[in-house]
Amino acid sequence: MRNLTLLTDLYQFTMMNGYAETGMADREAVFDVFFRPAAYLDFAVAAGLEQAVDYINNLHFDKDDVAYLRSLGCFGEKFFERIENFRFTGDVYAVREGEMVFPYEPLVTVKAPLFEAQLIETALLNMINHQTLIATKAMKMANETKGGIAEFGLRRAQGPDAGIYGARASMIGGCVSTSNVLAGKMFGVKVSGTHAHSWVMSFPDELTAFRKYAELYPDACLLLVDTYDTLGSGVPNAIKVFDELKAKGYKPLGIRLDSGDLAYLSKQARRMLDEAGHSDAKIFASGDIDENIIASLNAQGAKIDVWGIGTKLITASPNPALGGVYKLAAIQDEKGNWTPKMKISDTPEKITNPGFKTFYRIYDSDGKAAADLIALRGEKFDESKPLTIFHPIETWKRTTFEKYSMREIPVKVFEGGRQVYEIPSLEETVAFAARSKGEFWEEYKRLTNPHIYKVDLSDGLYDLRKSLMFDERRTNPRK
Amino acid sequence: MRNLTLLTDLYQFTMMNGYAETGMADREAVFDVFFRPAAYLDFAVAAGLEQAVDYINNLHFDKDDVAYLRSLGCFGEKFFERIENFRFTGDVYAVREGEMVFPYEPLVTVKAPLFEAQLIETALLNMINHQTLIATKAMKMANETKGGIAEFGLRRAQGPDAGIYGARASMIGGCVSTSNVLAGKMFGVKVSGTHAHSWVMSFPDELTAFRKYAELYPDACLLLVDTYDTLGSGVPNAIKVFDELKAKGYKPLGIRLDSGDLAYLSKQARRMLDEAGHSDAKIFASGDIDENIIASLNAQGAKIDVWGIGTKLITASPNPALGGVYKLAAIQDEKGNWTPKMKISDTPEKITNPGFKTFYRIYDSDGKAAADLIALRGEKFDESKPLTIFHPIETWKRTTFEKYSMREIPVKVFEGGRQVYEIPSLEETVAFAARSKGEFWEEYKRLTNPHIYKVDLSDGLYDLRKSLMFDERRTNPRK
Repeated sequence: MRNLTLLTDLYQFTMMNGYAETGMADREAVFDVFFRPAAYLDFAVAAGLEQAVDYINNLHFDKDDVAYLRSLGCFGEKFFERIENFRFTGDVYAVREGEMVFPYEPLVTVKAPLFEAQLIETALLNMINHQTLIATKAMKMANETKGGIAEFGLRRAQGPDAGIYGARASMIGGCVSTSNVLAGKMFGVKVSGTHAHSWVMSFPDELTAFRKYAELYPDACLLLVDTYDTLGSGVPNAIKVFDELKAKGYKPLGIRLDSGDLAYLSKQARRMLDEAGHSDAKIFASGDIDENIIASLNAQGAKIDVWGIGTKLITASPNPALGGVYKLAAIQDEKGNWTPKMKISDTPEKITNPGFKTFYRIYDSDGKAAADLIALRGEKFDESKPLTIFHPIETWKRTTFEKYSMREIPVKVFEGGRQVYEIPSLEETVAFAARSKGEFWEEYKRLTNPHIYKVDLSDGLYDLRKSLMFDERRTNPRK
Repeated sequence: MRNLTLLTDLYQFTMMNGYAETGMADREAVFDVFFRPAAYLDFAVAAGLEQAVDYINNLHFDKDDVAYLRSLGCFGEKFFERIENFRFTGDVYAVREGEMVFPYEPLVTVKAPLFEAQLIETALLNMINHQTLIATKAMKMANETKGGIAEFGLRRAQGPDAGIYGARASMIGGCVSTSNVLAGKMFGVKVSGTHAHSWVMSFPDELTAFRKYAELYPDACLLLVDTYDTLGSGVPNAIKVFDELKAKGYKPLGIRLDSGDLAYLSKQARRMLDEAGHSDAKIFASGDIDENIIASLNAQGAKIDVWGIGTKLITASPNPALGGVYKLAAIQDEKGNWTPKMKISDTPEKITNPGFKTFYRIYDSDGKAAADLIALRGEKFDESKPLTIFHPIETWKRTTFEKYSMREIPVKVFEGGRQVYEIPSLEETVAFAARSKGEFWEEYKRLTNPHIYKVDLSDGLYDLRKSLMFDERRTNPRK
């Protein structure tokens, strides 16, 4: 396993050195990972925890890491003493991979000595931000299809890891397969793929190329028909080869369209295949497709069964970052007493939630998710009594649940630095993701103007937040 | 070093198996990596070659790779014989990292047995696409500033590699530093960074946090001033601490603004710093900045010296993929004769250039780059005679050079599978990139409607392309 201990921002080390020098390194602090709302981020599918856990388990400074940090000439001996036999000793709570999550919810909560909690910020955000982003994008795409999404963006991914872990996240988001062989090997997911234009161009003509391919893969014969002229030569040649395959008792898989007007071409190709008696042959489409193009092509009656998606999925174009942040929520003072902390901002959306928190999903009597409630750890809820929740800023917006149930969403992952949560297999995570997604009405997941899911604050958290804000104004009055 | 041999699309293996089964695996083929024009891609800064070379040198199938491929159940014994002691045996030509390049130019040319050339397509594209994308974005940003760009996007990068190699590419594109410590260690580039909001929030008040920081780093005191109230408390507290530092004989570095209206805040902060006698203190700005925001803030007279850029640089948002492709340009027939190949398309921009190619940069008598010329390898040019070039589609657009010089841009990197080009240090590459960029008039590099640089075809290539297109129409007449 690669040593990613230095995969962090320099300012983490600058601060860690500062905490070591000022005697604050062992003070415990609580940090939350969460994301803020954005037009394309009404919800997200949590992912990346497995890699974050591996990273934390593997944290250690090799000799050459220490030598490099010494070469920077800006850290003291107290810092170097602390990193010598460094290991993570804190607690971590996190949302399971595949869980539907919403803005402001603590996806990961770290409770650890300041020195350790600061070190892991950057890599943790990197992994959770990336995979959550891609899983969410995949889910939006998968939501628009019946036949499924095949991920094949590796060549356009932002480096090897983006391809590998992007493929993993795509599966969590609901893709049916990936083209990425290394991801297939690492995660045991289904790999798929047929041939490129270069196969067709390597033979004297298209028909010979198709015939050779059919001979080699009679059971999985999917032919790329747009190298020369989709309807003029590609589809007719594919039909010839499918006829030959059928005569030998095989069932052809279908054709792939990779360019041109996919609405027009898929309808024409469907008609030609049907007329030739190949109604079972599927039509795969690829070529710069995103969730909006899927929705639009479906609305136009395009006859596309499976969507091969590269660039727009593996990079989450045109919004290629989730923007998750890692914010201090509480810290021990010199006597060991906990002080809740929040970042104040003139923009209400940028104010953070203080304290050591968790959150709950509230289900209505039909078992559908109705709202989430962020609460302080330790607050008690009695499901036998009605529960009133309210919007944290527009407090007049209130909902009371009479018959409901609650589920705590984060699980404890590390306790005292020891991993206490077993990461499920990717197969289990994929199934869990489908279950979590199924708890929500479609209206929350649609592409355009989705209904906004309620994420409210518990009474305890609301009161704490309010009192800290008033305190801050008293301490730092505006001029 | 990680074994990335399986970092490819399944269809490469499907085709390789096909070439092994049909006796075509040893036929040599020529493939080119190039990108097509796009609104945000008038030019690019080539990057990623070092990682591509490492990848090719390290190609081999481990036992568990073979076992995994066997488990897929779709490859024959001829395929497995070939991968057993696989190593790359071909030739590779490539543009040096840091070179300015343009649409259609062969950034990498692979001449290798079909079996090998097909395997490396995906990973090669992944690495070249990613780093070229980020180097180009960094160059566009750096072009808009005098004070420099500090890269700090690791937390928003699409996985660890995107952070690491994105930092590397950013330096090639002209950034002055990165926050990424692992990238600093791996590539010997300058790392920078100071403190986060959490540092300020971990102390009882802002002034104490600033004072502690100044005690620790008196020579490099850069203070983040927007945790509570930028102009109300942040800047005044920073000035207090700077006064104390100055009294002790130190020169304060400056302040960082991370939110709010950067035009207004930077002007006010500049005035406050100047009035307090800290004209030397620099103003750093960060927070969702891109090249257009830099240009706009500069036009508004914002007083920002150094720009810290995260998300928009490390993900190249909102165009997070370069879209480079790998296209067959020539192949040996069964007798070993070379046949040039091209992909025909109804869209002229999608037609590829056939044959085994290179390209030249033509300099005018002032030594400025005037045009590039893509040519067949083996074509001779006599710089003592006038040279007329013309647009490959709008052929009436012609330019004749009387006094000029030419430089061949790609270099030979592998010969018979052996690396024959030594990768320069990153420092040398950064200097080379600055030189290559300096050869171009600013008009070619500006953000909005840059002047389009001429990339023309040699007579030999133009004639070959034309004759192949007519041949293709004869063989496949449109109905």
